[in-house]
Amino acid sequence: MTRRAFHPSGEIRPLWWDGEHQVLVLLDQTRLPGEERYDDHSRPETVADAIRKLVVRGAPAIGCAAAGGVALSALSCTAREPEKLALQVREDMRLLAATRPTAVNLFWALARMEGRLQSLLDRGAGAEDIRGGLLAEAQALIEEDLASCRAMGELGAALVPDRPGGARILTHCNAGALATAGYGTALGVVRSAHRQGRVGMVWVDETRPVLQGARLTAWEMTREGIPATLICDNMAGSLMAAGRVDFVVVGADRITADGSVANKIGTYTVAALAARHRIPFTVAAPLSTIDLSLPSGDAIPIEERDPSEVTGYGGVSWAPAGMPVFNPAFDVTPAELVTAIITERGVARPPFGKSLPKLFPRP
Amino acid sequence: MTRRAFHPSGEIRPLWWDGEHQVLVLLDQTRLPGEERYDDHSRPETVADAIRKLVVRGAPAIGCAAAGGVALSALSCTAREPEKLALQVREDMRLLAATRPTAVNLFWALARMEGRLQSLLDRGAGAEDIRGGLLAEAQALIEEDLASCRAMGELGAALVPDRPGGARILTHCNAGALATAGYGTALGVVRSAHRQGRVGMVWVDETRPVLQGARLTAWEMTREGIPATLICDNMAGSLMAAGRVDFVVVGADRITADGSVANKIGTYTVAALAARHRIPFTVAAPLSTIDLSLPSGDAIPIEERDPSEVTGYGGVSWAPAGMPVFNPAFDVTPAELVTAIITERGVARPPFGKSLPKLFPRP
Repeated sequence: MTRRAFHPSGEIRPLWWDGEHQVLVLLDQTRLPGEERYDDHSRPETVADAIRKLVVRGAPAIGCAAAGGVALSALSCTAREPEKLALQVREDMRLLAATRPTAVNLFWALARMEGRLQSLLDRGAGAEDIRGGLLAEAQALIEEDLASCRAMGELGAALVPDRPGGARILTHCNAGALATAGYGTALGVVRSAHRQGRVGMVWVDETRPVLQGARLTAWEMTREGIPATLICDNMAGSLMAAGRVDFVVVGADRITADGSVANKIGTYTVAALAARHRIPFTVAAPLSTIDLSLPSGDAIPIEERDPSEVTGYGGVSWAPAGMPVFNPAFDVTPAELVTAIITERGVARPPFGKSLPKLFPRP
Repeated sequence: MTRRAFHPSGEIRPLWWDGEHQVLVLLDQTRLPGEERYDDHSRPETVADAIRKLVVRGAPAIGCAAAGGVALSALSCTAREPEKLALQVREDMRLLAATRPTAVNLFWALARMEGRLQSLLDRGAGAEDIRGGLLAEAQALIEEDLASCRAMGELGAALVPDRPGGARILTHCNAGALATAGYGTALGVVRSAHRQGRVGMVWVDETRPVLQGARLTAWEMTREGIPATLICDNMAGSLMAAGRVDFVVVGADRITADGSVANKIGTYTVAALAARHRIPFTVAAPLSTIDLSLPSGDAIPIEERDPSEVTGYGGVSWAPAGMPVFNPAFDVTPAELVTAIITERGVARPPFGKSLPKLFPRP
């Protein structure tokens, strides 16, 4: 089912649980900014497909959508025996896990849903209780992501330099409301700083090849009247050299124990330029993005996507036929280039090997 | 008139003088790689328009086209008095000079044509002699540019590192046959190294926003069977970090006395990344690109182009309507990031303030 309604809050929300219709609503981000279309999802298969096709994208949003997909798996399975239901849910979890390899939030969310499932089974819950429990867990995960973004926004805004006329903030890709349950990670920081009247300009990297900056971040900024200017990715260096960037904030798809950051391709280049020009380079990401099991960035699997993303756009092709293409979706920014990692539980500073573990609740 | 014939040499030539029809032939590069269309130009106005619309682009090619435009001005003017003819030619020179501000080759070529015109007037040449003299000058300038490219190719190829399987060379924009009278500056270096069997891979930056890499460099490499892979500009850093780039070579639109290099937007970013990864960053450009009158890069005028180049391509628009855009066509790479400047008269090394003037013939 397709609807054309915003979330009742009036804020930008790329996904939410509609309790009345028992569906996960997903904004189709591949159609933005031309069309703002929301689709109802009632099956885990269509959610997996939506993740794969970038209908929903952004590490936290992928995690939220996957959790919703697990709830839909339980709700749409008619099994009466808990074990049979668990079998189906776990099969759908594998389907959801196979969609995209780099963002760790996907696996974190699925592990959390599996943990809830296992604890329900352990205490002998019936099929209906399992359905209710998994739905409650997915709803909680989505609510917590939104709350995390608001917390990161406040913590991160405090790092934005004060400047007459407001700070000039550069961001790459879309780590916005659209990449989360709402409000955004990097753009959450921008939003909070803007509400404090401290943003002069947001420089929006267009973010080739899928143009999440030109399409999504530009749309978010336009929709909320935050002053923003679109640039090609290769123009950021010029702006920095001219002293026109005060602060960089980006999101992350996975952060390793040493503070290395996997994020949208091109992030490493922005970080290297920022370091050269002594501009703070900050990363806003919830704890669910931090993967302490990996010692360093080399160990992060990097997704390679279809060559057609590079050779053209929207039906227009501009490269010669048969031209070979290299299309990694992410790169790794080494920890030495990162000034601060902004999480919902506090801001980590180098050395991250020491500061990151401290943010996690003690077991 | 439109023709569909290559240059008789069979090599890629974006412009040449057709003596039989007394026209300047220009390949319409805005249509590449989809269509290889050559147009005859018999008026300076259409040449100026072609430069403005990027039908012909690339610093040396712009200079050659402008010289051809001056010859066409003289040939198409029916004045019998030398002074009247000179008046018309100089008016057309101003028209040609106003097309694009950054590449110095345009002004160099026009100054050379003006020098020839003045010397013809000084020795009392008649209108017919002036026409013949200006045409000969334009033809010589075009021939010399081609010869310069071949010389740069040989000199630059000697700088490409030897590596089993061949060097992996990264280039930005199109400094190829298409950007010159033929053979190319940066791609001349690639061609010469390839003929020596020393090129393993050419990494082609797509070069947003006008995609000269994806459209033109990719086309040149494909047409000649040189192994090449297309990447988005923001992927170069990943390749360098992975140790997959051995050498960078780019062209230039203007080089100042200290060795600072104005070139296609994004070049500075490539240079900063290359320096970080200790990869040689070289610039291939004829002496006509070197502007010893400017002490440093800050003094170079940087052309800003239309926002529509950034918000979409080929009739497809991807940014929200009304989104503000910053679109500088060039950036400046400071001399400290440049390993070598390859000219037709030799290779300059830092400090360029000393090495560059030595390349020029003594007056």
